[in-house]
Amino acid sequence: MIHSRVHVSDLREHVGRTVSVCGWVNTLRLQRKMQFVIVRDSTGMVQVTHKRDDGPLEAELEALTPESVVRITGRVVDAAQVNLGGLEIVPETVEVLNRAATPLPIDEHTGLEQRLDWRFLDVRRRPSAQLLFAVQTTLEQGMREYAYAQGATEMHTPKLMGTASESGAEVFKLGYFDRSAYLAQSPQFYKQMAISAGIDKVFEIGPVFRAEPSFTSRHATEFTGVDVELAWIDGVEDVMAFEEQMLAHTIGKVADTHGEAIREHFGVEVTVPNTPFPRITMAEAHEILRKGGWDPQGVKEDLDPEGERSISAHIKEATGHEFVFITHYPIGIRPFYHMRQADDPSVTLSFDLLWKGLEVTTGAQREHRYDVLLKQAAEKSMSTEPLQDYLNAFRYGCPPHGGLGMGLGRVLMVMLGLDSIREATFLFRGPNRLTP
Amino acid sequence: MIHSRVHVSDLREHVGRTVSVCGWVNTLRLQRKMQFVIVRDSTGMVQVTHKRDDGPLEAELEALTPESVVRITGRVVDAAQVNLGGLEIVPETVEVLNRAATPLPIDEHTGLEQRLDWRFLDVRRRPSAQLLFAVQTTLEQGMREYAYAQGATEMHTPKLMGTASESGAEVFKLGYFDRSAYLAQSPQFYKQMAISAGIDKVFEIGPVFRAEPSFTSRHATEFTGVDVELAWIDGVEDVMAFEEQMLAHTIGKVADTHGEAIREHFGVEVTVPNTPFPRITMAEAHEILRKGGWDPQGVKEDLDPEGERSISAHIKEATGHEFVFITHYPIGIRPFYHMRQADDPSVTLSFDLLWKGLEVTTGAQREHRYDVLLKQAAEKSMSTEPLQDYLNAFRYGCPPHGGLGMGLGRVLMVMLGLDSIREATFLFRGPNRLTP
Repeated sequence: MIHSRVHVSDLREHVGRTVSVCGWVNTLRLQRKMQFVIVRDSTGMVQVTHKRDDGPLEAELEALTPESVVRITGRVVDAAQVNLGGLEIVPETVEVLNRAATPLPIDEHTGLEQRLDWRFLDVRRRPSAQLLFAVQTTLEQGMREYAYAQGATEMHTPKLMGTASESGAEVFKLGYFDRSAYLAQSPQFYKQMAISAGIDKVFEIGPVFRAEPSFTSRHATEFTGVDVELAWIDGVEDVMAFEEQMLAHTIGKVADTHGEAIREHFGVEVTVPNTPFPRITMAEAHEILRKGGWDPQGVKEDLDPEGERSISAHIKEATGHEFVFITHYPIGIRPFYHMRQADDPSVTLSFDLLWKGLEVTTGAQREHRYDVLLKQAAEKSMSTEPLQDYLNAFRYGCPPHGGLGMGLGRVLMVMLGLDSIREATFLFRGPNRLTP
Repeated sequence: MIHSRVHVSDLREHVGRTVSVCGWVNTLRLQRKMQFVIVRDSTGMVQVTHKRDDGPLEAELEALTPESVVRITGRVVDAAQVNLGGLEIVPETVEVLNRAATPLPIDEHTGLEQRLDWRFLDVRRRPSAQLLFAVQTTLEQGMREYAYAQGATEMHTPKLMGTASESGAEVFKLGYFDRSAYLAQSPQFYKQMAISAGIDKVFEIGPVFRAEPSFTSRHATEFTGVDVELAWIDGVEDVMAFEEQMLAHTIGKVADTHGEAIREHFGVEVTVPNTPFPRITMAEAHEILRKGGWDPQGVKEDLDPEGERSISAHIKEATGHEFVFITHYPIGIRPFYHMRQADDPSVTLSFDLLWKGLEVTTGAQREHRYDVLLKQAAEKSMSTEPLQDYLNAFRYGCPPHGGLGMGLGRVLMVMLGLDSIREATFLFRGPNRLTP
């Protein structure tokens, strides 16, 4: 007789019955008189308890190895003394579906890089890593819920480009039949083309590629970007309002679904932010930071990581808020397609969003006027030839628009208090890592 | 006074009031006594009617060009004689937000390739193309709803690989700092790693890359794949059941949301399929086809496009069903990682799903036993060295699993009765096309 699989978390309902549990051997304790096998599935762990009897079952249990995949069929028994749910399984048969080799290449003391080499084991054996991907799923659900409710259209823009148009420097180049192609650093140009194609609100979650030789805890050569582009905006404020509403909705959903588990596994409280988020201009941020001794030479145009952390700490102290929009970036550190402020063309209508000191988003109103775009590209000494396909999208009627790009891994990193983007990614890619 | 924007579809509620309409100049009819401007936004079209009066407004309207982006403010007036909703706008001001150059590079007679060159205009000016992306959004919503309800986790697997592992032949190669990387042909290996990482059900929608020099109406070098991988299956039947349920749910959602619009714009009826879908083995398919004179030499192992169309037509006639699973593909035309049938190792536990004669999915139970995988790779004369990271995922306990890969563009193509995948993609990529 075949007994149907029961998840560990549902065993309590089956006390007194014979069921099958499918999972991994988490721990083996093979004592002189007793054999204990802790079996783990995605819902929890259960103890399998067998009294030695010199029978075939004893030999089968003795031959198990940690992380082997097993189907154990047996009776569910109330056992108040057992920590794992106060029950145990008295086995009748053990089936090894996949025997794990020994020894395992990692254990609980293994460092990050070697854990990444064996990422499937690393994720499988740590409940917090399992939780992370559940949180990621809920995050995306929340963002889509909000975006769909606003009438957004989900687009898939190409990752293969004919020219290295956006900047050229940090772009991967590949052979493409008899010529070259480039990997998109962001959906920027294409989501703007979708705006010009009459899509009112564009939403995309997909991979972006950066050929940056950066080895920091927050950079990757491939990561998942969340991109939004909104047509018919009255100004960049509409983009920031969209983002803060989307995040408030999404973080609320994560808090409801996983708040308790996140507290338990990551020791972090998920706080649903109030809207609107605080906003300060870059000039104000500089003033605040310089009062605190930051950038004593007074030469920095941008915020460095230390500046980002300090300004977030300042806002948190002043307002209690974990988020802050930094607005009005000077044109020198923003791309040519950011719109400039009509009454002060030295600043762009752009923003970054910091969360607990880390930049999680860059956004802006885009320049939609062809002649102004040409002028701004020329000012940045950009050749317009590789930009022609992009620029064409503004020659035949493109509405005012703006948008944002968010790093999904960074959001997870801050939300769960992780030290590195490597922990927030299933299979991290960096200058030194293309495997597994 | 600034009047807030009203969408064209909502104008009826504003008769007698002054509002702003924002959109594109769809058509200009500048007559001797009257000026008519048809303005189009994402919700519809409205006529702006102005009696010539030698005033500044007359000159502004006269200077408009087709596809210019305008904000027209005026009074909404009941006008039973007007085809577009029985109302018109009597303009007070016209603001040109972006003037379109003339002449437009495409019109309604332009062929496909040139339309693709100006895809933003092509999509913007055809309501059916706008509808297509709305349908795509609903399709994805439906698939995610089903997958989430089944407990699936949304994963983002890397597109950059260290080795050209899956086959090597159809892989794009790129420079990666001081070495080479390859673009993933599918998330196949990585979604299996996620299974080995303890994720019970994996779901991903993302780009896949194929360096195939194919110029057919159904191939692209980059397309959006829908990937599912399910752990703890009892057999490949579980994968087919997941897919047919997912499609039935999704197609039902599309029919509810867009059925009428699809009928109007594409002349196609969206039929919600019954489950289960018909299933026939490849051997049965061959027998049926050969009776009809297909493959007179009797040498073909696979189905060619003609065979796919014929077998679908046959099933449709026999059962009334638009879908058919072809199962039990011979091992020679399936990859090494497909599981073979225990009592007949000449066939794999795999399937393709045909919809109205087109293959939209390939799926299989995967071989999860390390030693068997090694043997099957050797039989296919594959070098195991570039496969080592993949193979490692089966050495330390990987549960039985299987999954499927679906082409989103192909699903759209069949659903809407399109001639080419180029029409089902926002920005198509093929051997000869990397732009715009």
